[in-house]
Amino acid sequence: MKNEIVKPSILPGFMELLPADQIEFNKLADTIRKTYESFGFMPIDTPVIEKSEILLAKGGGETEKQIYRFSKGSNDLSLRFDLTVPLARYVAQNSNSLTFPFRRYQIGKVYRGERNQKGRFREFYQCDIDIVGSNNLSILNDAEIPSIIYSIFNNLGFEDFTIKINNRKILNGFFESLGIEDKSDVLRIIDKIDKIGVVIATQELLTSGLSKGVIDNILEFINARGSNEDILLFLKNLDISNSTFKDGLCELSTVSKYVKLFGVPDKNFKIDLKISRGLDYYTGTVYETFLNEYPSIGSVCSGGRYDNLAEYYTKQKLPGVGISIGLTRLFYQLNEVGFFKNDTNSCITKVLVIPFDNNVIDYAISFAKSLRDKGIVTEIYLEDTKIVKKLGYANKLGIPYTILIGDEEIQNKTVKVKNMVTGNQETANLDEAYKMVNI
Amino acid sequence: MKNEIVKPSILPGFMELLPADQIEFNKLADTIRKTYESFGFMPIDTPVIEKSEILLAKGGGETEKQIYRFSKGSNDLSLRFDLTVPLARYVAQNSNSLTFPFRRYQIGKVYRGERNQKGRFREFYQCDIDIVGSNNLSILNDAEIPSIIYSIFNNLGFEDFTIKINNRKILNGFFESLGIEDKSDVLRIIDKIDKIGVVIATQELLTSGLSKGVIDNILEFINARGSNEDILLFLKNLDISNSTFKDGLCELSTVSKYVKLFGVPDKNFKIDLKISRGLDYYTGTVYETFLNEYPSIGSVCSGGRYDNLAEYYTKQKLPGVGISIGLTRLFYQLNEVGFFKNDTNSCITKVLVIPFDNNVIDYAISFAKSLRDKGIVTEIYLEDTKIVKKLGYANKLGIPYTILIGDEEIQNKTVKVKNMVTGNQETANLDEAYKMVNI
Repeated sequence: MKNEIVKPSILPGFMELLPADQIEFNKLADTIRKTYESFGFMPIDTPVIEKSEILLAKGGGETEKQIYRFSKGSNDLSLRFDLTVPLARYVAQNSNSLTFPFRRYQIGKVYRGERNQKGRFREFYQCDIDIVGSNNLSILNDAEIPSIIYSIFNNLGFEDFTIKINNRKILNGFFESLGIEDKSDVLRIIDKIDKIGVVIATQELLTSGLSKGVIDNILEFINARGSNEDILLFLKNLDISNSTFKDGLCELSTVSKYVKLFGVPDKNFKIDLKISRGLDYYTGTVYETFLNEYPSIGSVCSGGRYDNLAEYYTKQKLPGVGISIGLTRLFYQLNEVGFFKNDTNSCITKVLVIPFDNNVIDYAISFAKSLRDKGIVTEIYLEDTKIVKKLGYANKLGIPYTILIGDEEIQNKTVKVKNMVTGNQETANLDEAYKMVNI
Repeated sequence: MKNEIVKPSILPGFMELLPADQIEFNKLADTIRKTYESFGFMPIDTPVIEKSEILLAKGGGETEKQIYRFSKGSNDLSLRFDLTVPLARYVAQNSNSLTFPFRRYQIGKVYRGERNQKGRFREFYQCDIDIVGSNNLSILNDAEIPSIIYSIFNNLGFEDFTIKINNRKILNGFFESLGIEDKSDVLRIIDKIDKIGVVIATQELLTSGLSKGVIDNILEFINARGSNEDILLFLKNLDISNSTFKDGLCELSTVSKYVKLFGVPDKNFKIDLKISRGLDYYTGTVYETFLNEYPSIGSVCSGGRYDNLAEYYTKQKLPGVGISIGLTRLFYQLNEVGFFKNDTNSCITKVLVIPFDNNVIDYAISFAKSLRDKGIVTEIYLEDTKIVKKLGYANKLGIPYTILIGDEEIQNKTVKVKNMVTGNQETANLDEAYKMVNI
């Protein structure tokens, strides 16, 4: 039977990794998952395909254009474009079975048919946590979130990163105090000011109908500098009577105080009045996180507080606070800047047992099993080929140790343990071999 | 703003779990993953969406009817219906970058628009391993596979299960020796004989054109009983000269011998000439696995040897051997038969720190952090509510320990550790508390 060969390829905008990279990717995901779990978040796993009426209940905006939507039989289906809408549906659907505050994490793929460009993916992992209350949720949760972000990036091996925080109520209250009506437009422009620059932002604000004086006020406000205490004092001294502003300042002060108690060092936590988050469902605290050594990456972890998670699916009021890490993009960017070393650390297998020939394979199999039973990730080379090819296999995969077994070793009930990095080779029995590779 | 409420629901045929069940599900997945890794398998993660021309390169059969296929822009897209076709595409696409034999695992969701019925899912996890050689792959790999299956079900806590093995060449060679031309039809009927029974199978075989005498021959053959050695001897004594049969017998004898060396106990490994696997790409060894305590579940892990993985995508010959576990179905069935206990084991959080009121929250936060830093999964209850509600939260989630903190505890620099299962309550300092909960 002869087949037509279909050229093997994947769709543009989809990320697929070779195993060594996949191992590094999985390490990131595992660290994030373990950290989320260590703070008491529980896993959920929602379907990738949902009813279109669910995912598009809110409707409008870029979402609708980018969504993968199709039909199967009589069903109108869509692929989820984030993990927040499925969470809202999940909580509304299962509210009688859930215990509130509901702390859930979800790590999964989402789909957006975005314009194809470098570093943008149409299928990507989001790693989300949310704490969802029934009717109420203490502001203290907003203070715990930065400590989780801090643990994650600390556990991933970063030191120099900044969790930036702000409160939408402060921005909205301030804009109200200036008599601005369309606050969402202003928020949107402020949100991107670090990307587009002050000149273009000013132009856009002018276009949106603000006066030069008001714009100057806004620019001075969002650029407030100094320590967190300085900025809180600056806000207090503005003496704005707007109640939204006052609420926001009170919340930000509380969060700022407790973030310290939750163990976040001062150097990793900064109030920044420019942080506003484009998304319109945030209503209070907002977060963004930056790796200071890699400024080009942009925010690596963002989120915030919302008043009502699931208003499209239930009349129950479900306030919450959450964050999301775009893992696929984070991995891609870190890989681009050379963060991963791709050495023997990018290999899960610790030992490759190499029988010199098939006469000694029985002993090799049983030795490999003994090592594996002791908890060492051990692979055995089973193909009948030249020894140099067997060693080459270990080298190519970055396996740190090989264990060589020939007739002599069987007679002496030993093996030869070879460190593939240094080239050192030593004779050992099982226990000695175990100690040598269990580092 | 008032919204129309969309009734929150998911599509029929999709599995979605509450957190306690999800935790059990994840434990299964983690055990499978860890076991695969312990044998030197490397992770890959292919896109859920592929080009339709890739997934349908082989074409025909149920696959094409069940596939989720749609278009976006000018692209003809499909959701993967298994992990084998994406593996074939991946290996063909990356063959220059991969090291052979290529040992990969993949755990991911696949999609089949099957008829909606109990226990059948349209979105389900497969957990696959394959060992893919370039041009050749030693038969010893076929003997290692059962040891991996054994480790998995052993690690999952099962003892009484049987890995059944056969070899397609034996069946094909035997059918050839009987003068049967359409072997695939006979294989398909044999494959389901335990489900449909001998009477219906006989009828189907008659319909397919076989004579009563040939059918009796087949039934006697596939029902050969006795130890693995008995069956191998039975096959040898048939003295069939067909070369395919002889090859198959030689392979099965080798695999049977080495499976023992790989550490699989006799009681868990059984040659069964009825095992044939419906899928047409298997060419040698075939496996199925049964949990003997739960016969209704059917095979929980199946696979086999194939001559050529990626013939639709490359001219390179890529023989391999692999297995697949249908995790979603396995979880569903085990849950149905009451396998999971859903007690405090279904909770990741070990300790809930409960401040009596907001005056002691500072101490509670810092105590929770200290415990978490020592590796205990610790959550802190942050809502300002009655103590009975706080304890109720721990009870509902199955959190095994609470740590109660009030004014008295702060004065004495202690806490009260409460075992939520026994109700026992003891005063302790940090180190004592750590020892009490770290069991």
